[in-house]
Amino acid sequence: MSVLIRNCTAVLMDEADTVLSNAYVAVTGHKIASVGAVRPSGFFDEEIDGGGQVLMPGLVNAHSHVPMTLLRGYGGGCDLHTWLNQYIFPAEDRLDARAVRAGTALGLAEMISSGITAIADMYMFCDVIAQEVAAAGLSANIARGATLFAPEFDFATHPACVELRELADRWHGFGEGQILIDACIHGEYTSRPALWEAVAGYAKEKGLGMHVHVSETRAEHESCIGRHGATPVQTLDKYGVWDVRAIAAHCVWVTDEDIALMAEKGVSAVHNPVSNLKLGSGIAPVSSLRKAGVNVALGTDGVSSNNSHAMFEDLKLAAILQNGVACDPLATLPSDALRMATANGAGALGRKTGQIRAGYDADLILVDFNRPNLIPCHSIYDSLVYSAHGSDVAMNMARGKVIYKNGDFFTIDLDRVRHEVTEYAVPKIFG
Amino acid sequence: MSVLIRNCTAVLMDEADTVLSNAYVAVTGHKIASVGAVRPSGFFDEEIDGGGQVLMPGLVNAHSHVPMTLLRGYGGGCDLHTWLNQYIFPAEDRLDARAVRAGTALGLAEMISSGITAIADMYMFCDVIAQEVAAAGLSANIARGATLFAPEFDFATHPACVELRELADRWHGFGEGQILIDACIHGEYTSRPALWEAVAGYAKEKGLGMHVHVSETRAEHESCIGRHGATPVQTLDKYGVWDVRAIAAHCVWVTDEDIALMAEKGVSAVHNPVSNLKLGSGIAPVSSLRKAGVNVALGTDGVSSNNSHAMFEDLKLAAILQNGVACDPLATLPSDALRMATANGAGALGRKTGQIRAGYDADLILVDFNRPNLIPCHSIYDSLVYSAHGSDVAMNMARGKVIYKNGDFFTIDLDRVRHEVTEYAVPKIFG
Repeated sequence: MSVLIRNCTAVLMDEADTVLSNAYVAVTGHKIASVGAVRPSGFFDEEIDGGGQVLMPGLVNAHSHVPMTLLRGYGGGCDLHTWLNQYIFPAEDRLDARAVRAGTALGLAEMISSGITAIADMYMFCDVIAQEVAAAGLSANIARGATLFAPEFDFATHPACVELRELADRWHGFGEGQILIDACIHGEYTSRPALWEAVAGYAKEKGLGMHVHVSETRAEHESCIGRHGATPVQTLDKYGVWDVRAIAAHCVWVTDEDIALMAEKGVSAVHNPVSNLKLGSGIAPVSSLRKAGVNVALGTDGVSSNNSHAMFEDLKLAAILQNGVACDPLATLPSDALRMATANGAGALGRKTGQIRAGYDADLILVDFNRPNLIPCHSIYDSLVYSAHGSDVAMNMARGKVIYKNGDFFTIDLDRVRHEVTEYAVPKIFG
Repeated sequence: MSVLIRNCTAVLMDEADTVLSNAYVAVTGHKIASVGAVRPSGFFDEEIDGGGQVLMPGLVNAHSHVPMTLLRGYGGGCDLHTWLNQYIFPAEDRLDARAVRAGTALGLAEMISSGITAIADMYMFCDVIAQEVAAAGLSANIARGATLFAPEFDFATHPACVELRELADRWHGFGEGQILIDACIHGEYTSRPALWEAVAGYAKEKGLGMHVHVSETRAEHESCIGRHGATPVQTLDKYGVWDVRAIAAHCVWVTDEDIALMAEKGVSAVHNPVSNLKLGSGIAPVSSLRKAGVNVALGTDGVSSNNSHAMFEDLKLAAILQNGVACDPLATLPSDALRMATANGAGALGRKTGQIRAGYDADLILVDFNRPNLIPCHSIYDSLVYSAHGSDVAMNMARGKVIYKNGDFFTIDLDRVRHEVTEYAVPKIFG
């Protein structure tokens, strides 16, 4: 299957920040075949008229918990401890595969309609998540959050580790790389060295990436120092956790030493500005991370703490938050923020996406610049970062296939999903 | 003309945070006639089926510069001084009435489609702004920004003061209060005592409100102390500026003494979180202002520094920003933020709007809770504040008249406006 997208302005997100007027982007299978200002020769199975709109790489949501879409707005108005222990954990205990399937599809629909084409997700029931992702058509790095509270640990029988191995065997590399399995340690504060060592060793052996919550709250960060005499980043490093491609989500309280270590080890930091502000976790030192050369990507986190998957919101907030904190209007430029949401996300996930470039995944979105909120346009970057909303996404092409266009989903039956969420999942979980 | 809105869940924004299922809201002329859970007797000229959606008061944008919509994204990527002096001021010098008309209509379209029903706007060419507002159908407090750099001052001949008097005579109270004229001092740093005294005296005499930029940047705040030995709030107070209903926009650097004075004088603070972060102005002490009893409203500021009028974004940011800064997830509750965007805005503008209550202006919006991003709904407040987008606004009724529904504008010819912006205003201003 070959597709030609024409009559659009293409924001390539390459190193030179190229914006190509009257661009032609040819797609073969799930890959971009060519990008240029001249019509490529040859016949295409399909041509897509971009209508003069802006074509950009799909957004990469580098930290999410997609089934938690079911918990949207649940347990608001209480402190973090109460929220987690009295609302979130008990609700999660009542989840089953059917509910997770419904919540996953709903969350994916929200993501797809607002321009996301690849995610790094951490949760449970990952086989179900993988099935829904495979059907929905976007790309995902899927990670089974592993915890260890019991004194004993056996990698062969620990449930999350069993699931990790089954997932890796069944799904890693599925669909020409549509699905990758990342190894995962939920966090330092929810596990112990035996798990870290075993999971890190397995990731290294199998060539998997790693996904970990790191220094999200001050309490978590400081209690780790109390327990291990070192910060979470430094503690986990001793057990080889950062020896593979790794995603460190949040990084709100990381120190300068942590940042230097992350840069040295090539650990990607995922900034989740909405979630971090809403939960009162704090403000991540994104400027310091970037200055040190750490690859900083962007995530929505779970809808339970955002409460949205509209990543254009996180993009805008990432673009303005450091400016306000540092009283410096140039702390983050629009191109910096857009790169966090695209190319840097691709780096975090170990994927060839996040750029419009030959050989990369054909993960492309069209943004409708005829909307009143995108007129006039003095700068495409400024308009994409500060003025565009998820609802301006007119088309989502993931891996070469149009999966969403002007309100219509082609891989998700939204009516069925709505019904499953409201008639099955919500009564099941919330009684 | 009488209208009955039925089959909706009404968020009244009253003191008790009442949410009324299966609500009936009756409208007569431009006012709400009754609100209840029982169908009111009598015949209605029109009935609106709310489709089970959520009805709430329209958002009040308490600080904007609507014609600056023309400058969306212009001059990004440079520091505040360069941005203002090399981009914004020269562009504003090239404005004319026709360009302002186009920019105003465009900005109003964006506001209306994202749920705003009343604004407090400060700019120039205010007669044109008033005409466009009158035609568009929403409510506006319109203020002609007055500056004074010259050594001489005569209230009788100073251009901005002449315009103020003409505006007040022609427009104040127009359309049963649809348009109010506020007196205005652009800011302490752009004027001098002679202007403050004269404008404040005129406002008092004519019963007008006041609209002033206050302590937006640290430099502005501190240079005032250097010039006058007191902060902007305290300096302006000496000249009677706060002796009428007053809007103090920004208040990023106000001190505890300023806050106490504002509370005592009943000055409303307008929080512009997106603009303040983006421009690197800082983070306003909203929690302290609220704690002291200051009425805190919410604004988008100009699109030149936001770069959007989608006030649901500012609402969400206002709801999460203080939490992040204070590391307290309860610093701002959803109901606090929603009140800032509605009832508190009404207080700032001196209008009976921002609540669904008999005798109040029929400024009402329907939010479509069937959208994937609003499913499931565990808390209407949480969903409105954290999960809703401007694009979820299915209907905007301003002053009893439906001016927008599902993408269609009934008072603005968007094609004509688009044409005027791109074919006339942009070439005129930007060459």
